[in-house]
Amino acid sequence: MSIKPLNNKVAVQYLKDEKEEKTTEGGIVIPDSAQKDEKPQQGKIVAVGDNIAEEGKEDPVVVGDLVVFDKYAGTKVEIDEEEYIILEIKDVLAVIS
Amino acid sequence: MSIKPLNNKVAVQYLKDEKEEKTTEGGIVIPDSAQKDEKPQQGKIVAVGDNIAEEGKEDPVVVGDLVVFDKYAGTKVEIDEEEYIILEIKDVLAVIS
Amino acid sequence: MSIKPLNNKVAVQYLKDEKEEKTTEGGIVIPDSAQKDEKPQQGKIVAVGDNIAEEGKEDPVVVGDLVVFDKYAGTKVEIDEEEYIILEIKDVLAVIS
Amino acid sequence: MSIKPLNNKVAVQYLKDEKEEKTTEGGIVIPDSAQKDEKPQQGKIVAVGDNIAEEGKEDPVVVGDLVVFDKYAGTKVEIDEEEYIILEIKDVLAVIS
Amino acid sequence: MSIKPLNNKVAVQYLKDEKEEKTTEGGIVIPDSAQKDEKPQQGKIVAVGDNIAEEGKEDPVVVGDLVVFDKYAGTKVEIDEEEYIILEIKDVLAVIS
Amino acid sequence: MSIKPLNNKVAVQYLKDEKEEKTTEGGIVIPDSAQKDEKPQQGKIVAVGDNIAEEGKEDPVVVGDLVVFDKYAGTKVEIDEEEYIILEIKDVLAVIS
Amino acid sequence: MSIKPLNNKVAVQYLKDEKEEKTTEGGIVIPDSAQKDEKPQQGKIVAVGDNIAEEGKEDPVVVGDLVVFDKYAGTKVEIDEEEYIILEIKDVLAVIS
Repeated sequence: MSIKPLNNKVAVQYLKDEKEEKTTEGGIVIPDSAQKDEKPQQGKIVAVGDNIAEEGKEDPVVVGDLVVFDKYAGTKVEIDEEEYIILEIKDVLAVIS
Repeated sequence: MSIKPLNNKVAVQYLKDEKEEKTTEGGIVIPDSAQKDEKPQQGKIVAVGDNIAEEGKEDPVVVGDLVVFDKYAGTKVEIDEEEYIILEIKDVLAVIS
Repeated sequence: MSIKPLNNKVAVQYLKDEKEEKTTEGGIVIPDSAQKDEKPQQGKIVAVGDNIAEEGKEDPVVVGDLVVFDKYAGTKVEIDEEEYIILEIKDVLAVIS
Repeated sequence: MSIKPLNNKVAVQYLKDEKEEKTTEGGIVIPDSAQKDEKPQQGKIVAVGDNIAEEGKEDPVVVGDLVVFDKYAGTKVEIDEEEYIILEIKDVLAVIS
Repeated sequence: MSIKPLNNKVAVQYLKDEKEEKTTEGGIVIPDSAQKDEKPQQGKIVAVGDNIAEEGKEDPVVVGDLVVFDKYAGTKVEIDEEEYIILEIKDVLAVIS
Repeated sequence: MSIKPLNNKVAVQYLKDEKEEKTTEGGIVIPDSAQKDEKPQQGKIVAVGDNIAEEGKEDPVVVGDLVVFDKYAGTKVEIDEEEYIILEIKDVLAVIS
Repeated sequence: MSIKPLNNKVAVQYLKDEKEEKTTEGGIVIPDSAQKDEKPQQGKIVAVGDNIAEEGKEDPVVVGDLVVFDKYAGTKVEIDEEEYIILEIKDVLAVIS
């Protein structure tokens, strides 16, 4: 089974060693200034939409890229017991290499 | 009886085996961080509007496609005891194949 | 007496058999997740503005069409003891036929 | 004394027989669902701005037209003890004839 | 000393006889429906920015015009003990003549 | 040490004689209607970005201009014990001369 | 390991001597007027995206520039125990030289 993001969206797979234990389980809203110690999430691009490039430019990310993205953007999707996050390309902050 | 979405909208039929038991019946607002375990909804495209493609491109979904969409977008419609959700194409996240 | 919606607006007449008994009379704000059982409203197009089509396309609805629209969009108007709702075309979700 | 609305605005004079007794005097905010019985306001166009038409089209209203408009749009103006409401043309819903 | 508004802004001098006694001094937020009896402010245009006209049109107001404007728009400025309000042209509702 | 604002921003130096004693020290939010007696801030332009002019026009302010700006816009910056405010040009209301 | 911001974003490294002790640890929301004594953050540009220039202009910042930016914009990223902030170029206020 494969996933194909639409338009300006990309699918990212979380890095296995990512720590999430700082997230409150009760769903409390944590103001920005309290989140300073939390890492934005990192992951690997597994699929990209057809429209992620700026006009006339190359795609800013390709499958396999390690990226940093805003922890509070995007939507989680679970397919075949594997978890992905689907983000608009504007919420991908940077590529790490 | 058939349904024809307008413009940039699509009609999706829920997958029968979808679990919804995690939704609170009382209508409590659940903050984002508490929803991490919930699957975004999946369904099958049953009809599309005339304007779902980016300019000069093909339609990103066709009738029959299995798609993932944001659980909190769109409007439910019940026609002939069958339930649909009508979404703008931008709220369809990805096609699964 | 006749009604002519302006620009991108349409006038819709409610279907007579529509059930509304689930609406709270006190005006309580019902969160989205509590409204899942309510049908969006359906009605018949009785008049359309001059600018409801996408550029270079045909009008997406014509007088007489049975449509589904978002219950929380538009403005109710009572003329000659007949009730209409005036909606922007973008809030008409689909045509049923 | 005369009034000339600017740009995309129109001046409307209330119809004398309009009932307003359902409005709370204390200024309580009434949620949408509680306002279902209230008529949007009706009035007569008394002056129009120079820019109320869509590009390349005729003015959608002319002085003397009876119109329906959203009760909660626009700004009331009192000139020479006569009360007007000044609205953007987009908040005029329909012409009644 | 003179004042020159920038771009799409105009400077208005209040009419001397304007009544303001209905404004609460404590800064309470008064909902819209409670303000029905209050006049929007009127004043005289004393200076205009270089960009108040719609493209290819004449300036909609000139120095000396008596105008009606939304009481809650703009910013008050005091220069040489004279009070002005600086408004974007879109918040000037109409010219009175 | 010098400061160069980016793009559509300008740097303003406060006038020395500006009174600020009316600002609450505890950070209470003061509603608009309570601020009527407070002057918007005035200052001198000390540096401008490369993109403060409307297309095809001259810069609306130059270094040395005395300007009025909205007290609640912009960001304060302290460099070499001198305090500046950096504003988008749209938040500069008028030039005083 | 290196970081490459996407599109209109830049990566900034905090200046070592920056004081942060005025930030409340509990995550209390501090209204604007209470923050007057706090410096916006300063840092050094360490990497830039491919699309930070206005159309047809040069990049407004280059690697190595000392910049002032809005303290409440951007997202913190920690890579190899070094902390960066990734900002859209519009949130970089000025270059200091």
